[in-house]
Order: sequence, then C-alpha cells, then structure tokens
Amino acid sequence: MKRDEGSPQIPGGMGTIDAEAFLIDLDGVLYVDKTPIPGAKEALAQLEERGYRRRFVSNTTSKSRRGLAGFLGALGFEISAEEIFTPAVAAAGRLRSRNERCFLVAGPSLREDFDEAGVGVAEEGVDCVVVGDAEADFTYDRLNRAFRMVMEGSRIIALEKDRYWMGAGGLTLAAGPFVAALEYASGRKAELVGKPSPDFFALALRDLGASPEEAAMIGDDINSDVGGAKNVGMKGILVRTGKYREEAVAPSGISPDLILGSIAELGDHL
Amino acid sequence: MKRDEGSPQIPGGMGTIDAEAFLIDLDGVLYVDKTPIPGAKEALAQLEERGYRRRFVSNTTSKSRRGLAGFLGALGFEISAEEIFTPAVAAAGRLRSRNERCFLVAGPSLREDFDEAGVGVAEEGVDCVVVGDAEADFTYDRLNRAFRMVMEGSRIIALEKDRYWMGAGGLTLAAGPFVAALEYASGRKAELVGKPSPDFFALALRDLGASPEEAAMIGDDINSDVGGAKNVGMKGILVRTGKYREEAVAPSGISPDLILGSIAELGDHL
Repeated sequence: MKRDEGSPQIPGGMGTIDAEAFLIDLDGVLYVDKTPIPGAKEALAQLEERGYRRRFVSNTTSKSRRGLAGFLGALGFEISAEEIFTPAVAAAGRLRSRNERCFLVAGPSLREDFDEAGVGVAEEGVDCVVVGDAEADFTYDRLNRAFRMVMEGSRIIALEKDRYWMGAGGLTLAAGPFVAALEYASGRKAELVGKPSPDFFALALRDLGASPEEAAMIGDDINSDVGGAKNVGMKGILVRTGKYREEAVAPSGISPDLILGSIAELGDHL
Repeated sequence: MKRDEGSPQIPGGMGTIDAEAFLIDLDGVLYVDKTPIPGAKEALAQLEERGYRRRFVSNTTSKSRRGLAGFLGALGFEISAEEIFTPAVAAAGRLRSRNERCFLVAGPSLREDFDEAGVGVAEEGVDCVVVGDAEADFTYDRLNRAFRMVMEGSRIIALEKDRYWMGAGGLTLAAGPFVAALEYASGRKAELVGKPSPDFFALALRDLGASPEEAAMIGDDINSDVGGAKNVGMKGILVRTGKYREEAVAPSGISPDLILGSIAELGDHL
C-alpha cells in the first residue's frame, strides 16, 4: 500500500496502538547526535509506569552494548546494557550457539560484546569474518587478511550494510561499502545481521518474552524499522525525528500503523 | 564457439597468424614475477628484425609507464616508455582531451602518467576520481574523500576492476573491490579503462597506425586479452604462461586464433 495523506490506512496523530511490548530504536528516536529528543525520557517513564515491557534495538556497530548504555546514561536515560540489542550482540549469540570463532573487522570497543558472549575472537583459523563500522580501522592490511580468510572458507558476517552516515565532517562511509568490497573480491555473499533481518527482531522479542503480534517497533527508518517489524508480524510506528524523511515514506510502499511527531507523543496513543 | 581440443577452429601449435602488427601483454607474457619467460627476448628481437610493429598493453596500475620501462630494462627487455600503454596512460589521455581534473586513489608512482599528459591532479574541485591499485594507500580517509567527491558529482574512473592478484604474501586485494565499495556507497557506476575496454585497444592501435584487422593481441588472459581483442576485430593469441589456466578457456566461450606454449614460439607462426 502506498502512503496516502489523510487515508484511514495510515493513522496520523489520533489512533491508538494495540501492543503490550515495545522494541525501540535508539539513534534518531531517543536522541539525535548527542542531544536527547525532548520528551523522550518522560515517554519511557510512562511506558514503565503503565507496565509495558521494552527492549532497545539499534543497528549501531561502532559501540558495544555496554558502551551504548554508558552513552545513554550520560544523556540521562536509565537503560541497562542487557536491554540493548545490537548487531554485534546478535552475531555474538549466533556464533556462540554454533561454537564458532571469528575475525573482527570493527572498531576496538566492539570486541567486548564477543568476549562477554564467550565467543573466540582470533587472528587466524576462524569460521567467519565479522564486519562492522570500523572507520579508520578499515585498513588495507585488515581487509586483506579478512579477504584471505574468506578465500580459505570463512563466511562473511555483515553487522550492517548501510552505505554511509552523516558524520561531523560530512558524509562518511559506513560498513556496507567494505562488505561489498569483500563480496566483490571473494565472489561470496555476506550474511546480514541487524535490522531488518527477521532473526534480529526475533532475538529481542524472545528476550522480552513477547510474540510479534503483541509487540510494536518504534523507529525513524521506514524500511529497516517499520518495514522490518511489519515483515515479522509486529506493528510498526514511525517517528518524524532523526533520519525521518517525508519523501522516503511513499516510495517504500510501507504503511506504518502509526506516525508520531516524536516518541514524546507515544503516551497519547496507548 | 566452445573450445574443443584438436578441433580445426582452434589452431594448436601448427597454424600461422596473419598479422602485421602486435599488441603484447607484459606480466605473464614477457615475465612472471621478476623472471623473464625463456625465449621472450629472442621473440621480440625476431619481430623487430622481420619488420613487425609492436606496442605493449598492460593492465598494471601500480607503476607508471616510465616505471614499467625501467622495470623491464632491469629484466633485460629494451622497451621504451612510449611503447607501453597502461590504464593510467589511457585515462590521462582521455582526461586531457576533456580538459578535466582528477583526484587520484592510487600508488604514488602513478601520478607521473597524469603529470606527463598535462592532466591536473588535485585534492578538491575535480571532475573525476581515478582508482588504481593503491594497496596500502587505500586508506579509510582517502576512500572517504573520494566518496564525498563522487556524492558531489565527480565521476568514478576505474583503471581496473580485477578482484585480486597473487602477491608474495598470498592473494591480495586489487583495485576492483575498492571500486565496488565506492559504487555501492554512491550508487553510481564506474567508467572502466584498460583491457578489455575497446577504447583501450583502439588507443594502442592508433598509436601504432594499424587497423584492428591487421593486428593481433598476445596475452595470457583468455577474457581480457583474447576476448577483448577479438571483440574489436583483432586476432587473439593465447599463451600458456602467467595466469593461463586450461580450465578457464572452455567456459569463456572464446576461441583464440592461436595458442602457444609461450611467446618464445611466436616466430614459428609468422
């Protein structure tokens, strides 16, 4: 269904959302850059008071879940590391269950998520190569070593395949282009972890003890947040903050169950 | 046509080749690693004595044409820089004719080819981003700068799109994966220079004053050398040295006009 302003298929500000549990995106929903979205803290407090369960699902691959919890704490959000699901957490859980070892192409802080899950991180003899947002750690040497491992049989696990993000200095290459480089060089396809992968939503829901039908996802990305959630049977709530762009909604062919000015309005729709 | 051992469509050791001029690949045809192919020097001397014209066409993007001539001289081959055509020489010529400036993502020695052609090489305000085999100079910072220029309208020129090459330390990422990374990030396609681009063969033939019909290409790559040459109307001679692999010939669907054990046998087929 296409978006159609004013159509009853896409509730604007007035609908209510039938959900008992929420998965909430971080960047762009609770904060933008290093500034909290006005009313976001109060919205989370209201959810808690009224007994709604919650988990946080972010595609960030530049920080460990503990690093993210610390960052959120500094912004005034009381969120524990265990409530946060990132692609690194999901990948570490998957590798742990398979008893597999990995080679990391990522920033130094990400290793913590793998260590905590008891996943072996090694420089040789691995089952897979995990690629996150390594920024300046995307060196030719590191990529070459990853490439050789893939040619010897290691699988490629992409924590994300974003093209770029808006950094302080301008548009900045994300992990996606480097995953594409390894895919091109090796002729193999990467396994994608993180939103909109169904496994990623399932992992957070399992931890929450909720079925997709009783849960709603709140995010600023029409495709990976709202589309990904609806694809697994959850409800999808789009917020007009962060990377939200009006012109991206209609072409996506995705109808959010609710569109909010920001997460601050959530309490009015419960 | 498929390759068919013993079929008259693919002359083995006995045919003669009807050509007045030759385009000759370097790496894998005249030398492998740093060792001359036995008989290669004598074969070149024989061509010269019998009045055949020649040019050398290589997809190497790690050395300037002068650097290549020096390297060949050290191996005992008397070949002038002006006889050598590389993707950098072709790209520089193309940019010169369009009066365009470029940003280089390549090893430091390649700049010479652009300087000699009078092409402006700059760090900003360029018309295109030229990507060669930069090896350790493929840094995150350099790629990010190239990416931002492309997002601001600069075109991507790929000197080659090879996946990898066999280095002293093992398989090594070539320029192709980094071109793929920029293409993925920007959503734009690169303009490919070098073999098997028809323009590349045309440039060398023009310099030689030969038509495609009177020229033959000698190379070790069934696709980019033999296939590329036949595609523009030249004859294609495959040598069983360098990267030649028997099992790559049939699947290519390309029929060489002649297959030689090495360039040393060329004199027997003139």
